[in-house]
Amino acid sequence: MQRQDKNRVAFQGEHGAYSEIAAHTFFGNKIELLASETFDLVFKKVEAGVANFGVIPIENSLAGSIHQNYDLLLKHRLRIIGELNLRISHNLIANRNASLSGIRRVFSHPQALMQCQNNMARLKGVEIIPTYDTAGSVKKIKEEKILDGAAIASELAARIYGMKILKQRIQDNPENFTRFLVLARSTRPPENANKTSIVYSVKDLPGALFRSLSVFALRDIDLYKIESRPLHGKPWEYFFYVDFAGRLEDSNCRNALKHLAEIATFMKILGSYKRDARLKARD
Amino acid sequence: MQRQDKNRVAFQGEHGAYSEIAAHTFFGNKIELLASETFDLVFKKVEAGVANFGVIPIENSLAGSIHQNYDLLLKHRLRIIGELNLRISHNLIANRNASLSGIRRVFSHPQALMQCQNNMARLKGVEIIPTYDTAGSVKKIKEEKILDGAAIASELAARIYGMKILKQRIQDNPENFTRFLVLARSTRPPENANKTSIVYSVKDLPGALFRSLSVFALRDIDLYKIESRPLHGKPWEYFFYVDFAGRLEDSNCRNALKHLAEIATFMKILGSYKRDARLKARD
Repeated sequence: MQRQDKNRVAFQGEHGAYSEIAAHTFFGNKIELLASETFDLVFKKVEAGVANFGVIPIENSLAGSIHQNYDLLLKHRLRIIGELNLRISHNLIANRNASLSGIRRVFSHPQALMQCQNNMARLKGVEIIPTYDTAGSVKKIKEEKILDGAAIASELAARIYGMKILKQRIQDNPENFTRFLVLARSTRPPENANKTSIVYSVKDLPGALFRSLSVFALRDIDLYKIESRPLHGKPWEYFFYVDFAGRLEDSNCRNALKHLAEIATFMKILGSYKRDARLKARD
Repeated sequence: MQRQDKNRVAFQGEHGAYSEIAAHTFFGNKIELLASETFDLVFKKVEAGVANFGVIPIENSLAGSIHQNYDLLLKHRLRIIGELNLRISHNLIANRNASLSGIRRVFSHPQALMQCQNNMARLKGVEIIPTYDTAGSVKKIKEEKILDGAAIASELAARIYGMKILKQRIQDNPENFTRFLVLARSTRPPENANKTSIVYSVKDLPGALFRSLSVFALRDIDLYKIESRPLHGKPWEYFFYVDFAGRLEDSNCRNALKHLAEIATFMKILGSYKRDARLKARD
């Protein structure tokens, strides 16, 4: 019996994407997943109510921030309601009748290729071909019956498309984690929220950046991350994205943001949510 | 009469690249330019003495920082000895016997394509093809005699390859500047240096980032920029790249860095150089 009230969760990529694994880890298995071609479409589906939630990668522990998603958080009107750290374990995946010695081409997303570049360099005479998607590359070599090609993607992608794993754990550095954000239209933070994300700009960088951070330090509010992105039309001015400890309802956070409003020329609250302090091993 | 003591300047890309224009703007025309396939090769040529200087883009006012070059500044042992802001003006370039109405494909570097995406969307039925290089795309459509294709690149690239400019200033936003750094082996800062760049890490983010910035604020030293990059092997810890006002020889800068050394777990000086406060119109 199909239930109609299943949560619909949008993610970018084809089925088998790491974002899909993140969605299952966060929500469990009783969700409906909406594969979306672009990150922008993930935001739009949640805004339009086509999906209840969106799951997007925001940062990888080796490659750094996914700046496009920082820009989209500013552009769209969604709230962050959760986060999740996922260990990223890459696999070399091929058709069932392919063999490792016959592989001449490896397809994957540039980030995945970069995370496996030392291992890939050991496969002599193999051409590296960047694509838009990890799981999408598995789908491609299956559909196009490419026997001299392999894809770098998740174990889930191999399972979904009925493909063979030629090599497991092919990432160069085992400390390879991606932090995902869960987005919703809701403006009420979860009960157990203990982390808040905001974005703001200040009049000019000298002095003002330090003063803006002092609103947290003066109240003993810990900062987890600061990220800067260009402010379009004003060369060398920036939006600052700050993650800090605490929830919007806390009086010291409220006071810090009131203080920040005196300094900032622009400020937007991105959400309060429960911090994921663990580094998850699931893949 | 050819002089043998011409300065050799390495840059990434094919001749006609924006980095080549930046090199000429900084050094004048009496230099020898060494086209290099990758940014890593630019650093290596300067380190090995094959080139006297390297010129690399570090930040675009619309697309943000070029993180690969931040990572290379940490990895290699070069000093920043100068910087230059260059207005980036893109052109749609084709073979002499091609026409705008016949263009079905546009080739360029993803950053250039992104900076022209609204204008490109107006060309109906045109396929956008990402490449590794702006000027290299001009060279490609010339060498392969592609008549239904155009490239997005500099006016210089059109001139070098004897190609036709179909459309000038095709960037969506006119406030499109790239900041370039000039690199050398020299450890002595230029006489007129008034800006310094460093990279450091701190024990853990909460509190420590603020304290590390306070070493500048407590001495009235202005910050121009802060950029964070992942610290490999330690998920969610960061290297901080800070640009501040002043030169290494100034006593307040020396004191600030001594103070920072008490807090930092790692610190590297990237160089003192003359700040380019202007936004240059040359292209």
